[in-house]
Amino acid sequence: MQKIKVIGFDADDTLWVNEPYFQDVEKSFCDLTKDFLPASEVSKELLKTEIQNIDKYGYGIKGFTLSMVETALKISNNKVPASIIDKILNLGKSIFDKPIELLDNIEFILQKLKDNYKIIVATKGDLLDQQRKLKQSGLLSYFHHIEIMSEKKEANYCDLITRLNINPEEFLMIGNSIMSDILPVISIGGNAIHVPYHVTWQHELSSNSSSKNEFITISKLSEILNILPLLNS
Amino acid sequence: MQKIKVIGFDADDTLWVNEPYFQDVEKSFCDLTKDFLPASEVSKELLKTEIQNIDKYGYGIKGFTLSMVETALKISNNKVPASIIDKILNLGKSIFDKPIELLDNIEFILQKLKDNYKIIVATKGDLLDQQRKLKQSGLLSYFHHIEIMSEKKEANYCDLITRLNINPEEFLMIGNSIMSDILPVISIGGNAIHVPYHVTWQHELSSNSSSKNEFITISKLSEILNILPLLNS
Repeated sequence: MQKIKVIGFDADDTLWVNEPYFQDVEKSFCDLTKDFLPASEVSKELLKTEIQNIDKYGYGIKGFTLSMVETALKISNNKVPASIIDKILNLGKSIFDKPIELLDNIEFILQKLKDNYKIIVATKGDLLDQQRKLKQSGLLSYFHHIEIMSEKKEANYCDLITRLNINPEEFLMIGNSIMSDILPVISIGGNAIHVPYHVTWQHELSSNSSSKNEFITISKLSEILNILPLLNS
Repeated sequence: MQKIKVIGFDADDTLWVNEPYFQDVEKSFCDLTKDFLPASEVSKELLKTEIQNIDKYGYGIKGFTLSMVETALKISNNKVPASIIDKILNLGKSIFDKPIELLDNIEFILQKLKDNYKIIVATKGDLLDQQRKLKQSGLLSYFHHIEIMSEKKEANYCDLITRLNINPEEFLMIGNSIMSDILPVISIGGNAIHVPYHVTWQHELSSNSSSKNEFITISKLSEILNILPLLNS
């Protein structure tokens, strides 16, 4: 941790609440479609549809909404009433209006880090929506750079590190997803700290997380202040 | 044009064909919904819905598809059959599979420019989809930087120019949309060259384009080679 120059923060469920909003909407979706299939089966079908669509739709609310519509059509054999499709569109739109609830003591933490490190956001999802959340969060001024990534795989992190003009060992990624924030970064020679969040999207758990790579897990974001050297604080 | 250091290229309908694919899908959509409203009325309703949704959905295929579904529900008073919604989702997905057809002699042009200028792409739309198109285009290696913008307004260009570490007069934007590629750039003191494309999305025409600002319009992209100084070609 002595060589670190740049710290990348994941955004959703690391800086602010995100997944619970999607899970709430998914519950309402399962309720809307319960005449066709029990809730647990609907959830499975939705996840399958989301994964099938990821190459085209990527991550974020729009793709999630389209996959809910597609799932409703599929499980009802194209019998779902248009009024339910209308409700699904509105459920999707409701996520855009959720407040930005910051996690832990994030502003204090960023304030402590910003004189010692270059801090960036490295997040997946829809560009416009992530920009909206960053603006609403009030955190924008702490970040040197916002990287909105279409995927968080090894190659994407390699590109990011090249653009930042640093070596992998000078990069630290902090996030809640072992699959997206931790393993690919360690695998290219970077550093990573895992801050689990109490809920995780099923898809982020689907990879083999039993890696032999070692990484630090902390229970609260503020613990990074005890781990990282802070010269100028 | 003597001071220019960085040239920004719009992508859709400047580097490659885009709008015709959307217009073809819109025609099929109007055909699918013709029992509820005549085609020209459906198009008007769709445009209205797209504009209403832009703050949430931004630009791109996913938002376009969601707006088609919403329009079908609206014009049918929630009576549209689920099988038509299914067809609309597939129409939307079909746009992702369209080939990348490069315009004019773009590779030759970029080859001529790249030793004299830093060339970037500055485009709107869904991140993942624009990255896919750039990869498929085979043009990626010509560009120093890919800027996928959530909007193309003055403030967005100011941010871009700041990040590029140049002055506005050192920036030249080339694109097919007067509203998105030309006027905001000129307005912040930059340079812009307009290359009209034979079709333009209605929304891009909706602003007042009768600006008193002057800008160069060329009929073919390759004409920029006659306008720009090429020292090392």
